[in-house]
Amino acid sequence: MGSLVKTHKGAVLYGAQDLRIEDCITTTPEDHQVQIRVRATGICGTDMHYFQNGRNGIYVVKEPLILGHEAAGEISAVGKNVTEFKIGDRVLMEPQRPCEKCVVCRRGRYNLCDRMKFSGSASCYPVVQGSLQQFYNHAASFVYRLPDNVSFVEGALVEPLAVALHAVRRSGVETGQSVLILGAGAVGLLCAGAAKIAGASSVNIVDIDEGKLNFALGESRTDFAARIADETLAQPGFGLVDVVFECTGADTCMNIAIQCATKGGKVVMVGLGTPVQSLNIGLAGVHEVDLLGIWRYANTFPTAIELLRTGQIDLKPMITHTFDLEKAADSLKFTLSRPDNLVKCVITCK
Amino acid sequence: MGSLVKTHKGAVLYGAQDLRIEDCITTTPEDHQVQIRVRATGICGTDMHYFQNGRNGIYVVKEPLILGHEAAGEISAVGKNVTEFKIGDRVLMEPQRPCEKCVVCRRGRYNLCDRMKFSGSASCYPVVQGSLQQFYNHAASFVYRLPDNVSFVEGALVEPLAVALHAVRRSGVETGQSVLILGAGAVGLLCAGAAKIAGASSVNIVDIDEGKLNFALGESRTDFAARIADETLAQPGFGLVDVVFECTGADTCMNIAIQCATKGGKVVMVGLGTPVQSLNIGLAGVHEVDLLGIWRYANTFPTAIELLRTGQIDLKPMITHTFDLEKAADSLKFTLSRPDNLVKCVITCK
Amino acid sequence: MGSLVKTHKGAVLYGAQDLRIEDCITTTPEDHQVQIRVRATGICGTDMHYFQNGRNGIYVVKEPLILGHEAAGEISAVGKNVTEFKIGDRVLMEPQRPCEKCVVCRRGRYNLCDRMKFSGSASCYPVVQGSLQQFYNHAASFVYRLPDNVSFVEGALVEPLAVALHAVRRSGVETGQSVLILGAGAVGLLCAGAAKIAGASSVNIVDIDEGKLNFALGESRTDFAARIADETLAQPGFGLVDVVFECTGADTCMNIAIQCATKGGKVVMVGLGTPVQSLNIGLAGVHEVDLLGIWRYANTFPTAIELLRTGQIDLKPMITHTFDLEKAADSLKFTLSRPDNLVKCVITCK
Amino acid sequence: MGSLVKTHKGAVLYGAQDLRIEDCITTTPEDHQVQIRVRATGICGTDMHYFQNGRNGIYVVKEPLILGHEAAGEISAVGKNVTEFKIGDRVLMEPQRPCEKCVVCRRGRYNLCDRMKFSGSASCYPVVQGSLQQFYNHAASFVYRLPDNVSFVEGALVEPLAVALHAVRRSGVETGQSVLILGAGAVGLLCAGAAKIAGASSVNIVDIDEGKLNFALGESRTDFAARIADETLAQPGFGLVDVVFECTGADTCMNIAIQCATKGGKVVMVGLGTPVQSLNIGLAGVHEVDLLGIWRYANTFPTAIELLRTGQIDLKPMITHTFDLEKAADSLKFTLSRPDNLVKCVITCK
Repeated sequence: MGSLVKTHKGAVLYGAQDLRIEDCITTTPEDHQVQIRVRATGICGTDMHYFQNGRNGIYVVKEPLILGHEAAGEISAVGKNVTEFKIGDRVLMEPQRPCEKCVVCRRGRYNLCDRMKFSGSASCYPVVQGSLQQFYNHAASFVYRLPDNVSFVEGALVEPLAVALHAVRRSGVETGQSVLILGAGAVGLLCAGAAKIAGASSVNIVDIDEGKLNFALGESRTDFAARIADETLAQPGFGLVDVVFECTGADTCMNIAIQCATKGGKVVMVGLGTPVQSLNIGLAGVHEVDLLGIWRYANTFPTAIELLRTGQIDLKPMITHTFDLEKAADSLKFTLSRPDNLVKCVITCK
Repeated sequence: MGSLVKTHKGAVLYGAQDLRIEDCITTTPEDHQVQIRVRATGICGTDMHYFQNGRNGIYVVKEPLILGHEAAGEISAVGKNVTEFKIGDRVLMEPQRPCEKCVVCRRGRYNLCDRMKFSGSASCYPVVQGSLQQFYNHAASFVYRLPDNVSFVEGALVEPLAVALHAVRRSGVETGQSVLILGAGAVGLLCAGAAKIAGASSVNIVDIDEGKLNFALGESRTDFAARIADETLAQPGFGLVDVVFECTGADTCMNIAIQCATKGGKVVMVGLGTPVQSLNIGLAGVHEVDLLGIWRYANTFPTAIELLRTGQIDLKPMITHTFDLEKAADSLKFTLSRPDNLVKCVITCK
Repeated sequence: MGSLVKTHKGAVLYGAQDLRIEDCITTTPEDHQVQIRVRATGICGTDMHYFQNGRNGIYVVKEPLILGHEAAGEISAVGKNVTEFKIGDRVLMEPQRPCEKCVVCRRGRYNLCDRMKFSGSASCYPVVQGSLQQFYNHAASFVYRLPDNVSFVEGALVEPLAVALHAVRRSGVETGQSVLILGAGAVGLLCAGAAKIAGASSVNIVDIDEGKLNFALGESRTDFAARIADETLAQPGFGLVDVVFECTGADTCMNIAIQCATKGGKVVMVGLGTPVQSLNIGLAGVHEVDLLGIWRYANTFPTAIELLRTGQIDLKPMITHTFDLEKAADSLKFTLSRPDNLVKCVITCK
Repeated sequence: MGSLVKTHKGAVLYGAQDLRIEDCITTTPEDHQVQIRVRATGICGTDMHYFQNGRNGIYVVKEPLILGHEAAGEISAVGKNVTEFKIGDRVLMEPQRPCEKCVVCRRGRYNLCDRMKFSGSASCYPVVQGSLQQFYNHAASFVYRLPDNVSFVEGALVEPLAVALHAVRRSGVETGQSVLILGAGAVGLLCAGAAKIAGASSVNIVDIDEGKLNFALGESRTDFAARIADETLAQPGFGLVDVVFECTGADTCMNIAIQCATKGGKVVMVGLGTPVQSLNIGLAGVHEVDLLGIWRYANTFPTAIELLRTGQIDLKPMITHTFDLEKAADSLKFTLSRPDNLVKCVITCK
């Protein structure tokens, strides 16, 4: 007699650089959940911290952890209270599950909920497993339909786009304003794209790695990049802009951001770096330059999906590498090596 | 001995449909003013009201009035305190001159200033003459440089674009939202364009005059226009949208606007029509649909110019007709006849 | 052997002016609910509409309805998932239960949720019974602790205070601004109090019924009331104010509100009256006076409770009449008679 | 023959701690100015920096400087274009004169104007003299009428109150929120008062100098002060608050502010201290705690005056010391000695 337990493949992290493909138990979704046959999961900086060091800041991998929080796939089963999805639906997930009862949830800032559960992260207790596996159960109310014109691989990038949209929304960028992006990684590039869509007339993006600038969305980075070709980021003088998105996490860059912001402007702290930084807060103060942090996103998944559906943004050029789930460890090692032409790596399941 | 008084040609309105080309005295600009050699002046609905009826609402033409408040040209003289312009500079003007001292001016809503002077209008006392003449003196601080890539004729359309940008700014349209425009006149079309630039994902525009829809900026109006081809504007059912710009001034349309707005949405009253309207205010109330009026613009000329400089908007397709200043009366009569293919008429001076 | 079914007294409305005290079945709370031993329920205009006509606008009493949505009491039982309350806790309830999943809920405007359940109202299907009974089960997440210094009867008034706070929050009243309240009923008086707390320097309240003005909170209504002693509300000339709260629902008053608002001001439509009104929308438009509706409240119960806890507001003078549950029909008839000295009637259960 | 030059007494600073009472030339006001017979001038931290060190940050006293920017008095002469004042009017002045033409002025943030002239400060070139003299000429549009119930000495405190109101307005404090003030100097105390007026339910104020707390406006500081009696400001644990006003300028306090702010809260940087500070910006980021600087004020003088006129705030208890103009040097030396019971020192002219 065969086993009654159904299993599927998953990429399980046991500690620093110890990722194993294993058989995971396939559970039926709870009443309010759907089961997703995962087709694509993007790899981000958080995943890389866990893989490289077995920890992400203060959060240590103490028990086996399945990474992955940027995911798209097909509905493979639905919980008994779920009416809005059926098997076969193409979907993507928002990896957050706030309590929906507390004051911050009710006021629309659910990303700040103290009782947040977040997929593929050791930051919650008990650990919430992620989507780097063939099947993944998730609350139906945080699952969204993938538009017909959007592939699973693109769908996996909705999560970082949601980060950028949250940053841009917090910044209040207006039509006609000027924007500077510090750091041309995936999120920096997406902030540039989102700022353009929000009407910014001038969007410049800088990075010490000139290669990365080739992926910048839109033409405006070229001149600027050229102009700073032989400067380092440490040198100010980029002129004054209405909004700066600081996407590097380096305090040098935060100070450049403060210097580059016009009076009454904004600096949005997108990149997480050294928590304690030596900052020219006096300059920010007398110029009334607001320093605004962001923590993930709230209410931006529907917006991100709408941008893809209408073609207002095209994420395909950013997907520079894909690996099969079986090669998940290889893909993480490859990403760790920081190859020149890498923007975004996505792990796929056939 | 020749006359010491210098004169130039101007189009002077003496009353309903009585517009005469006359010699006007050319005055030297005051200390804070520049003199503009006017090259292009757009004709708008306000001008048409004055021409058709000798009045615009409660404001009656009691003394000769030179119309024109959408103007671009070249600097031909500068007042002695003016340092930011020199003869020959290509410029356009904002036709407002608020007091800059009162509470509303200081709080950034100078369009609402009680002591506003507005060019080419009988609404101020004494009357402020307008730009339908060869030379026009204007406060230098409300004159802006025309970018090299923008023609005088396009420059004359910055004023209606500033109206649309003010409407869109007041609406708070966000990236990904849906927008409906009622009325496909010049301002409606510009609202559509401005909403797109501000990130709206879906912008639909409707009009009972199907011909006008051909000028709609962007592709999105097509389907919608088709869908309502055999409906009249009086029939609701356009679905729910985040923001409605009501550009007709008809109360039928205001009620459609209220019905079409989603809960928590906005209706911006752009069109001025019958002041007293019979409105379903109860529906607006329980849906928390904000009804927001607009009065000209504040702080949107710099934005409008930036959009033209960067090519984010192209106004050329809207300029369907031009006439020489000598033919000003003809151009107003032509406009009055509401020809099918007219969007915007501009009067030029060689 | 006695019956296994536990019952309690409730005031059941069968149709217009047909309210009967009956035995209702006492049910155990669901897992996420608490059972409240109701001690006080306020009577509001909605309740009066149901009682007087057997309907409230389009919502008709088709099956027996227990009114009551302004309630305070003690916890008498807790559902098995409820950890934040224990038997004997003094509490009050927010009568709304939105879905907490849709876009408006997630963006913080849960009062606009399409799937709202509201206590004591025929507006939902199936009908949701209200608190005019001895025991009432309610979602624990919409139950709040009553501060020690607040009586049950005062606790019942937190709901209308929450309405006023929502109106004031929507209005954006700022420190130093001037406010006019049209209509000195309970909600008008509470708007006056809430505007004062929010820093308004001048708060005037007017009503055609001079008697009602005696209950106005704060001193500022006196002068104003005197000034309009021999005017009717239909006569404008109250001067210009930053924010007007229209609490009567009469279109005459809406037009006064529009006339009294300063340029750039706000009119908040608090009172629900004739849905279709003949309004001077043209004036609102050119003055950029925003017309803002309100629908109940969102996120203001915690604020209301904090104001009572700290003594920033005192609701006791407003509670002019109390009746025992057994006399519920009498209390509603009494309220219908609009006695001079009535502000708020509360029904209590010993 | 007598001299044609009229003179009056003024307190002229020649360098560090070198303040001399001298005869200053009395000039007639320019066309747009009024001449004020100064009756009271408050002394603030900026004045003390100039007096103590002959400089304020980067601004060095290179030529004789008359300090004073918190002033009230009587109109003694009016320029020929001034119609709103007449000799004898009791007034106070806003010491700022922005250009009123640039983008920030027009958008309502005139405090950030690049061409600002500020009274009694070496920060402008040429230096703008201040009000520590018997007569002072000032732009009529930045002079306000003193209400009858407000003394000249109180009028001199409108300026620091305007700072506090600007800080509170920037913070967006709402009714019912909790506030923490770090630093109980004059501006800290005024922030506490302004936050209370704006509806904050809980306002706590802390200082390492327990004596200063005795002047705290309102009762709420007592418990809090007691609780931290044997703590230093360096120890966190004050609980989470919605808005923190940091009024010390010390980086220790900025870090406490960041720790004390609730998720989604605000820290307003009121105090100017070391420009470069070592800050836990990472915590501010992940909690989405906005860090907001303030630079003087914009549009808050009318509000401040309204609060005094209506009695919403009483500044008299804060005026702990007055000196005659002849004793200006003594008053500054006294203030430098930081006596226990000093909150605010005002210099008067009979």
